[in-house]
Amino acid sequence: MGGSMPDDFERMWSDLAPLGRSSVSGGYFRQPFTGVDGELRSWFIAQAGRRGLAVEADGFGNLVAWWRPDRGADRRGVLTGSHLDSVLDGGAYDGPLGVVSALAAVDVLRSRGFVPSRPIGVSVFAEEEGSRFGLACLGSRLATGALSWDAARSLRDRDGVSLEDALAASSGLGLELELGPSGGWLGGGAAAPSLRERVECFVELHVEQGRDLVDRGAAVGVASEIWPHGRYRFDFTGSANHAGTTRMEDRRDPMLTYAMTALAANEQARAAGQRATFGRLEVAPNGTNAIPSRVTAWLDARGSTDGALADLVDAIVGQATDRAGRDGTSLEVTPESVTGAVVFDPALATRLAADHEGGDWPVIPTMAGHDAGILSAAGIPTAMLFVRNPTGVSHSPEEHAEIADCLVGVSALADTLERLAR
Amino acid sequence: MGGSMPDDFERMWSDLAPLGRSSVSGGYFRQPFTGVDGELRSWFIAQAGRRGLAVEADGFGNLVAWWRPDRGADRRGVLTGSHLDSVLDGGAYDGPLGVVSALAAVDVLRSRGFVPSRPIGVSVFAEEEGSRFGLACLGSRLATGALSWDAARSLRDRDGVSLEDALAASSGLGLELELGPSGGWLGGGAAAPSLRERVECFVELHVEQGRDLVDRGAAVGVASEIWPHGRYRFDFTGSANHAGTTRMEDRRDPMLTYAMTALAANEQARAAGQRATFGRLEVAPNGTNAIPSRVTAWLDARGSTDGALADLVDAIVGQATDRAGRDGTSLEVTPESVTGAVVFDPALATRLAADHEGGDWPVIPTMAGHDAGILSAAGIPTAMLFVRNPTGVSHSPEEHAEIADCLVGVSALADTLERLAR
Repeated sequence: MGGSMPDDFERMWSDLAPLGRSSVSGGYFRQPFTGVDGELRSWFIAQAGRRGLAVEADGFGNLVAWWRPDRGADRRGVLTGSHLDSVLDGGAYDGPLGVVSALAAVDVLRSRGFVPSRPIGVSVFAEEEGSRFGLACLGSRLATGALSWDAARSLRDRDGVSLEDALAASSGLGLELELGPSGGWLGGGAAAPSLRERVECFVELHVEQGRDLVDRGAAVGVASEIWPHGRYRFDFTGSANHAGTTRMEDRRDPMLTYAMTALAANEQARAAGQRATFGRLEVAPNGTNAIPSRVTAWLDARGSTDGALADLVDAIVGQATDRAGRDGTSLEVTPESVTGAVVFDPALATRLAADHEGGDWPVIPTMAGHDAGILSAAGIPTAMLFVRNPTGVSHSPEEHAEIADCLVGVSALADTLERLAR
Repeated sequence: MGGSMPDDFERMWSDLAPLGRSSVSGGYFRQPFTGVDGELRSWFIAQAGRRGLAVEADGFGNLVAWWRPDRGADRRGVLTGSHLDSVLDGGAYDGPLGVVSALAAVDVLRSRGFVPSRPIGVSVFAEEEGSRFGLACLGSRLATGALSWDAARSLRDRDGVSLEDALAASSGLGLELELGPSGGWLGGGAAAPSLRERVECFVELHVEQGRDLVDRGAAVGVASEIWPHGRYRFDFTGSANHAGTTRMEDRRDPMLTYAMTALAANEQARAAGQRATFGRLEVAPNGTNAIPSRVTAWLDARGSTDGALADLVDAIVGQATDRAGRDGTSLEVTPESVTGAVVFDPALATRLAADHEGGDWPVIPTMAGHDAGILSAAGIPTAMLFVRNPTGVSHSPEEHAEIADCLVGVSALADTLERLAR
């Protein structure tokens, strides 16, 4: 890597820019174990190769590129990275910024002449957004053992393809890389994960998904905690019938129960200062002239505490159940994933945030889930760096970060890795 | 056809039973210009062949099988029939009952030794439900000139396939049958329709989609009118963002505007004694952890008069627009099809309903649209016969009619054709 850091960063960024981008919306569709995922992995493997980093894959779609120093190569590593997948019609930064910044930070450290005392690994976790198999942080959950392979293998995407079949069919996506000493850096396939044995600590850099840093006038910050959050499937069942001939009072229309539930979720979250969203919906049979037989809707809920989250979901389910009784419909609620509060290692956060030119970095909470939360819950000391987002918009083609702030983020990540792998 | 009428009817019915039926719901998925549509057309053509009826196709997917007497073959014909397509996850009777009954009625008339004084045609109109291209009665609208080919050719299905391409690709679906003297019985392709020149009157037999006949204790009835009805696309546009990090008060969530609109539509229709349904919905990007950028919903509305329908839609749009203002979203409403009140030829209805053993048949209105409404609006004297539906359920796998009532329907249709083609 002979160029300057800004040039290299911008080149990596422009390499990634066209991959999986919709020409209609400008947003990204980077679902795991698909053709575009293969392109993203190829790009990552090529970037690792250019830097002489050794790439390992596990059996779950997770990748890591290791910078192994001559001395200390057998010590536990400092892991940094993020993910390359996107939500449906997502932004460019959520995920890739952490991967590109990690590679750029390796370049910065080398240009500084820094030699780490332990391995530094640049990681890419699979299916962080859960956009295909419905479960966020799928790769890191499997890698840490938070989710067993037996529970995960039969997860299905919207076309009915199982995770097991998707992985088996993913030849050419970089998943068939040579496995490491313990059968892959995370143990591979169905074996027990060895992540904790090989990783000293984890740092994830991420674009902020809010405006805390804007309000504080800071380009970067350190995460204190992640709010508890969960995904809950609401199956509203009624009775299909003719939209023209069925009297209003004779209907058992699940769309009405759903509609009231969506409004109730918003009102409950607003009143309690929490978050609730119905962003995904499936209607059957979904015909204009038929009352639906079924509406399936997914609630995304977040609370400031585990108790606040439980209270919020209980209140929404309670109102939905009452309405179902009045509509003659039925409701079944299935929690698909619930993640409790994550408090990142406070000593580590303080250590990373303190003693910088221009003052300490702010330490701020986030309401967004991340692989970092999964690794932290698995007992691995973990920290997150956020890069300022001028609008706070994320999970949208409008997501943005200024290039100057991104470069501050790379330097901050390099400083952080230096503190951790000195 | 050597068997008895009940046997022949039941055999035709059981031939059709498996075509396009979902093994999951038991409902039917018989969308036009698809593989299952080809099977349905092959069945119809074979049935016509067994009876020596000459099948003609036009360029729009409509079929007719003619019984031409030796004398009067050049007179305008009496047309009877219905459609073979279904809504998504529909019932067995809506459409096919009219086609099967028409074929069975021909058998009954022949067994009675009846020789018509003019041709009798058994018709199958294409895409009556509008389940694929969104416009109900597509085939009959094209056949009557109510819709021009130029306006229809670029209609697209949910996969983006245009009607023109679907028709061009429909080789083997019976659309390439030899065309009649005027380039097809309806003029064919882009030529002017000749339906009115060749058809004296039209009778459609249909399962009732309500319980009027149950309440009246009658197995069959005659239609008086069809309520005005329309389909309106509501495009709610907001701003995609992260479901976790975006404060409730900062959102522009089109799902909320939609949800309130769905409830308002129900309340307005209920209060006014009309009908309003949101049965079809598309959400973008439809991800659990993203606030939607867009919700598209289709309103099916029906009113007892043209004014009542307009008032109902105005009231719903008004409430939706107010809510959009409060939600920071925008709304665009596009009427995709609006069909005014259809009053069937009163003299014809009276003539068909009167003077039967056991008394006159009841004359009842319907809130459901039919090809008969399109032909009637085109100036063709038209009537409908309804067969009792014990539950009133339709557009659902639960749709049903008792076999005894169906056989009464066949006899009633035979009697009707005898009166019209004597």
